[in-house]
Amino acid sequence: MNPISPTSIPLERYRENFFGLGNKFYFNYGGQGPLPRSALLAIQQSYEQIQQLGPFSGKVNTWIVEETERTRRAIATELKTPPETITLTENVSVGCNIALWGMDWQAGDHLLISDCEHHSVIAAVKEIQRRFQIEVSLCPLRSTLNAGDPIATLASYLRPHTRLVALSHILWNTGQLLPLEEMVQVCHDYASDRPIRVLVDAAQSVGVLPLNLTELQADFYAFTGHKWWCGPEGLGGLYVRPEAGAELHPTFIGWRSTVTDSAGYPTGWKSDGRRYEVATSAYPLYAGLREAIALHPQWGNPMERYQRILALSRLLWQKLVAVPGVTCLRTQPPEAGLVSFQISPQSHQQMVQFLETRDILIRIILDLNCVRACVHYFTLESEIDQLVAAVQEFTN
Amino acid sequence: MNPISPTSIPLERYRENFFGLGNKFYFNYGGQGPLPRSALLAIQQSYEQIQQLGPFSGKVNTWIVEETERTRRAIATELKTPPETITLTENVSVGCNIALWGMDWQAGDHLLISDCEHHSVIAAVKEIQRRFQIEVSLCPLRSTLNAGDPIATLASYLRPHTRLVALSHILWNTGQLLPLEEMVQVCHDYASDRPIRVLVDAAQSVGVLPLNLTELQADFYAFTGHKWWCGPEGLGGLYVRPEAGAELHPTFIGWRSTVTDSAGYPTGWKSDGRRYEVATSAYPLYAGLREAIALHPQWGNPMERYQRILALSRLLWQKLVAVPGVTCLRTQPPEAGLVSFQISPQSHQQMVQFLETRDILIRIILDLNCVRACVHYFTLESEIDQLVAAVQEFTN
Repeated sequence: MNPISPTSIPLERYRENFFGLGNKFYFNYGGQGPLPRSALLAIQQSYEQIQQLGPFSGKVNTWIVEETERTRRAIATELKTPPETITLTENVSVGCNIALWGMDWQAGDHLLISDCEHHSVIAAVKEIQRRFQIEVSLCPLRSTLNAGDPIATLASYLRPHTRLVALSHILWNTGQLLPLEEMVQVCHDYASDRPIRVLVDAAQSVGVLPLNLTELQADFYAFTGHKWWCGPEGLGGLYVRPEAGAELHPTFIGWRSTVTDSAGYPTGWKSDGRRYEVATSAYPLYAGLREAIALHPQWGNPMERYQRILALSRLLWQKLVAVPGVTCLRTQPPEAGLVSFQISPQSHQQMVQFLETRDILIRIILDLNCVRACVHYFTLESEIDQLVAAVQEFTN
Repeated sequence: MNPISPTSIPLERYRENFFGLGNKFYFNYGGQGPLPRSALLAIQQSYEQIQQLGPFSGKVNTWIVEETERTRRAIATELKTPPETITLTENVSVGCNIALWGMDWQAGDHLLISDCEHHSVIAAVKEIQRRFQIEVSLCPLRSTLNAGDPIATLASYLRPHTRLVALSHILWNTGQLLPLEEMVQVCHDYASDRPIRVLVDAAQSVGVLPLNLTELQADFYAFTGHKWWCGPEGLGGLYVRPEAGAELHPTFIGWRSTVTDSAGYPTGWKSDGRRYEVATSAYPLYAGLREAIALHPQWGNPMERYQRILALSRLLWQKLVAVPGVTCLRTQPPEAGLVSFQISPQSHQQMVQFLETRDILIRIILDLNCVRACVHYFTLESEIDQLVAAVQEFTN
């Protein structure tokens, strides 16, 4: 494989943007991406700017409104959707909570959740179930990783009173890429008294897949900037499809959610995604995320970057499969940057700790009793070699 | 008045910590406090640290747990309460929402809210009312600013089915300091089938008043670090009194809220304030807030700082009262750092803009048709003179 980007920037030089990569072999992009130096600088400059002009003043308030809109636009452009559909959130979980709590739940409503969701979403769903006496059932997608049809599986689990389906675009534990557009279609086409909405945990897909949310038609798409986009931690977003937004109520509410009359009294919700935002956030992060988003196209377009991720994860998968005692969860090359595997005998926690002593960073996934290594488009083949050699050493 | 602090640091030199103060006359502490240089540096160092050790690794995960606990402890020490009672939040509104949505509301329950609350809280209460068909009524505290008894007023508005009282410790618009301990006592002593809980918007009291939350006995006390504490925007907290926490359910939920079993499955809530936290936050801010909190004692203890705020707000009030065309909302000197006033003819927005052209920053308060100037313990008398002279010039 050619380590020269489509735009001819040598990868080694390009990687210098990510100052956290210099002293380690990094495979935890699905946990958090490394922050580019330009993003940190932009954050720093925002802090200075706020103190220079305020911190609380007419000028800063105007600047915050502009920063917010610039950030919403930058995100919306990447996801191919109008800026009005984007809510800025603290993280993926907050985005999922906005969708989960904003539904007009009635006792007996059915919520279908895949059996591969993150425990953040599971815990929120369990509390929704308790509060509103809804039915919750599991859609067995885990078993479709290597065989079977997730679309047909989903279809067979929908019920007349299903109101919401919660799943991930790329499953965080197995790395499976779901055929989301078709799965959404199945839900929207289902003959039901009320439309079935689809909530997508996009933690592992934004920054990886070339995306067009307008075409995808998922109702709620919750993502973060700090994983594959390599933005600062504590800033993400939620896409709400206009048809679904018409009936999604704000839950956590503050001055950012509302419009007020001339006496400052709240009279209703903002007409766009701001209605689900609450109050003061770490605004300096906004410029940081925009810098991170702006960096990636310098290496290649979304499809070129995704193809590079696929090439590298295939390489890692191939090399791991060849190591005695290692079993990759997938029997075919990965469909994204996540490579989950098990070792025999199972001493995953010890292996992760052993690798960290070698400055090789991967993570354990408890709910599948496996470990997960992630590659980004700027991962080096030599890093992959280091990881595989160390896994071999540990399992030997 | 003596501009030398109790610990003999000249005020001019002490103020150099706040690099935003150098180019202006600042009176918007109730909106946002200026960030100390040491806080910004600590934030910067945290970003570097995370990239050095991770960003996602065993070492960083351990560091985040420690940072979180250090921050909870620093806050708890200031507020004289055990760390377990503190939840870290993004801002005051989120803290209020946690309390408002976590109650086990039944149709017909009564929520009493003061008529001086911020529109963030009003908007959240209106949505709670709609969702759970509760009764909401206003407690007229505004009229007790200069005469009347807020304790007796509150007592007369409680009902047998009152479940929650929402008020502020220091009213954001009039600057009135409520006798909170007595008002909480009235609620807790009320003969009701279920205990009446008290939610306090502490946006204007934390960092101003010497506080002991254990003695105060308010059930929920929602505050922020970025106003009077001068921490970074986007980080605050919520105190939950243990007796009230036993029946307050988490609403927005994520991996930080839960405990999980060995297979990563969520089995319940964390036993302390973390149960109301959600997921990944802007962790680098934590060190920034701690630096800000640690700075203030260098000038004086909480009572000395509060006395200095009172002395300065009295001075500002006296000077404003003497300006023709200016009416202070209070007929007596202020009880905190907020000084709200009106001018005749009413052209408050124009005056705020005029003052900003002179680098004098105050704000308009729409819901009382007034403007508000805040003084902190490190405000200069010469700043007060500049403000008063400019107000005089504008109203002349």
